[in-house]
Amino acid sequence: MDSLVAAAHVKAEGVQLISLAVDYGQRTRVELDAARSLASWLESLEHVELAVDLRAVGGSALTAEIAVPKGKSASEGIPVTYVPARNTLLLALALGLAEARGADAMVIGANQIDYSGYPDCRPEFLDAFDELARVGTKAGVEGRPPKILAPLLHLSKAEIVARGLALDVPFRETVSCYDPDGSGAACGACDSCALRRAGFDAAGVKDPTRYTNR
Amino acid sequence: MDSLVAAAHVKAEGVQLISLAVDYGQRTRVELDAARSLASWLESLEHVELAVDLRAVGGSALTAEIAVPKGKSASEGIPVTYVPARNTLLLALALGLAEARGADAMVIGANQIDYSGYPDCRPEFLDAFDELARVGTKAGVEGRPPKILAPLLHLSKAEIVARGLALDVPFRETVSCYDPDGSGAACGACDSCALRRAGFDAAGVKDPTRYTNR
Repeated sequence: MDSLVAAAHVKAEGVQLISLAVDYGQRTRVELDAARSLASWLESLEHVELAVDLRAVGGSALTAEIAVPKGKSASEGIPVTYVPARNTLLLALALGLAEARGADAMVIGANQIDYSGYPDCRPEFLDAFDELARVGTKAGVEGRPPKILAPLLHLSKAEIVARGLALDVPFRETVSCYDPDGSGAACGACDSCALRRAGFDAAGVKDPTRYTNR
Repeated sequence: MDSLVAAAHVKAEGVQLISLAVDYGQRTRVELDAARSLASWLESLEHVELAVDLRAVGGSALTAEIAVPKGKSASEGIPVTYVPARNTLLLALALGLAEARGADAMVIGANQIDYSGYPDCRPEFLDAFDELARVGTKAGVEGRPPKILAPLLHLSKAEIVARGLALDVPFRETVSCYDPDGSGAACGACDSCALRRAGFDAAGVKDPTRYTNR
């Protein structure tokens, strides 16, 4: 939902989008189907799907045989769902695509208020990546590096819900759950479900997600 | 050959290695076979192979239907063999693997003397990536970010050849050519072949690579 709201926010400012979905071996393959459908809603010029199987790397509950924790409402420290260097990798792929297409920017749904446990969602990480893109690409050397846009960076989950509602995004099609069942229904109990649910509750609206547990 | 000499250099200092080969859709698939064989020579603890097909991104003679230039002995500006954000992506994958395995460092064969046309082989790029790893990983937040080691950064190609000879590396197994034939023989005419050949010539030794053109 964060990616969708971030993209819709930028689109509402008149920007044309190219969408990128990455299959990194995550449990939530249903994400990739959702991304294709949402790319269509966003009227993306092009939807690119890349695969890199991080199960050979492991080290996370999302990519290895480590259980996704249930029933904790907020993470303490860095959670086991942290995928080593995940956003560095996602942004590296986005940077290559942006450079190959001559795009001005890369949009990311990172937000630090409710996800402070993830080091790669913080402003200092995004700033460091901007510097990397500036010195490490042909586009950067030529004075036009693709820059990161993170329009949700300082919003709470409730504010992201409100922003999405204002933009009329199809929240029912988004996937937040770290551990959905075979039909794509959300577990309702992992950190990501808990955070999403709390966000909708705080915004005072019903979450249209289909949950197995309620 | 740069990756091998860099790895052998670090190994000679007593470091244990994990090797990573990335199939990014490059023309030179024979590189991947060579990497497996060289991992064995390097006594790698583990050889990890990851695939991410950058042909969907394109924008380079190595990943798209763009001809590899032949007959130029040195690149002017940034060559068409530049793959958008390639080293950012390779280091992102290496960073995730290093973090997942608890490794202290990532070794890269980048050298800027003979490759100044590639922005992502420069010291400022490597410094920016170190900063990214420091702020963007769990390991970094905990005060032990994997750091980049680039032992060849300030060496010429001839010096790299000399370093490799001193370390007795199997140069005959390395692949430098951007456009090898089906049997794995080097074309002898692309930038990378020309640079390699000039390096061996300057070092005063014969290059054991098998070339189709001489």
